[in-house]
Amino acid sequence: MTKPYDLKNERKSEHDVDEIFIKRWSPRAIGKKDFTEDDLASLFEAARWTPSSFNVQPWRFLYAMNGDENWSTFFGLLGEFNQMWAKDAGALIVVLSKKTNDEGKPNVTSSFDTGSAWMSFALQARMKNFIAHGMAGFDYEKARKILNVQDDYNVEAMLAIGTQGDVEDLHERMQKSEKPNERKHVKEFAFRGGFPN
Amino acid sequence: MTKPYDLKNERKSEHDVDEIFIKRWSPRAIGKKDFTEDDLASLFEAARWTPSSFNVQPWRFLYAMNGDENWSTFFGLLGEFNQMWAKDAGALIVVLSKKTNDEGKPNVTSSFDTGSAWMSFALQARMKNFIAHGMAGFDYEKARKILNVQDDYNVEAMLAIGTQGDVEDLHERMQKSEKPNERKHVKEFAFRGGFPN
Repeated sequence: MTKPYDLKNERKSEHDVDEIFIKRWSPRAIGKKDFTEDDLASLFEAARWTPSSFNVQPWRFLYAMNGDENWSTFFGLLGEFNQMWAKDAGALIVVLSKKTNDEGKPNVTSSFDTGSAWMSFALQARMKNFIAHGMAGFDYEKARKILNVQDDYNVEAMLAIGTQGDVEDLHERMQKSEKPNERKHVKEFAFRGGFPN
Repeated sequence: MTKPYDLKNERKSEHDVDEIFIKRWSPRAIGKKDFTEDDLASLFEAARWTPSSFNVQPWRFLYAMNGDENWSTFFGLLGEFNQMWAKDAGALIVVLSKKTNDEGKPNVTSSFDTGSAWMSFALQARMKNFIAHGMAGFDYEKARKILNVQDDYNVEAMLAIGTQGDVEDLHERMQKSEKPNERKHVKEFAFRGGFPN
């Protein structure tokens, strides 16, 4: 039985870095077995301590556990491709950001700060050997409507969370792509002094 | 001599979580001593492995090391309050996100994904006992103009990075706030099934 974490991680770092960042990736072989709401709470706890501008903490997470009465609502938001593998996830989450601060004024960093919270969540998931896979392949407007998301919230992403699944249960096409992907070099996104001419 | 990491961290977790998330905070007692461009590269390396929608990797970092020819340009973007403490940072960074993908189409997750990259950066900084402090208190429009940021990039945040500084060197007002801040409870931002009625 092929398990995702048996795959050799071919990623190579260019600079000294903790292995958690290299070892975290976004598998699709996901399972719901033994994944509990308490497990999810640990991931929210990691997200909780994320920094945000003026400590506004704009992140919100709406979620369904696989098999509960709201699962089909959340699952129905996903695009067909994501439904093919996320059907076996332990939980599905819609990530929102509150676009205003407590005084009702625009918070320009709400999406940025909410992305930060997702990263804490994802790294904690990896530390616990859970799968956390972010998705943009879903119906944003339907999510807003069906989950009654008010205008002062932005729909940011969906997440599939669970335990390790079996790669052989994936569609053949997905089995082939079930490995960590590559990245730009640091020199392609970090520039001393300003953009190169 | 009071060092920020000698402060007792009063944060209490509600659920099982790795201590790195609790221990990371945003001090202002920052220093440039022994902080090198190689140190910064390790933090970019952590950011590098962040997930993003379709692996677009929209994050960009423009930076100046304290004392180099571009320092005053970056430092001049900060608001007065941030200038008071960030003057001693090892590096200042302007974080940008590319709002379009490689085909020139809008990338709806660019700010969100770039926030994720910042979180990886910040956690790696904490792991190495560096200070990483995100800031929205700067002139966004001036940053765009002076750093020649094109329209397809969004200015997201500025960061002050460095080694541990001495709390006693901070302005008195900042000394009092030089401690980890609190957070909402998990139940205030994560909701099963949808927003509570």
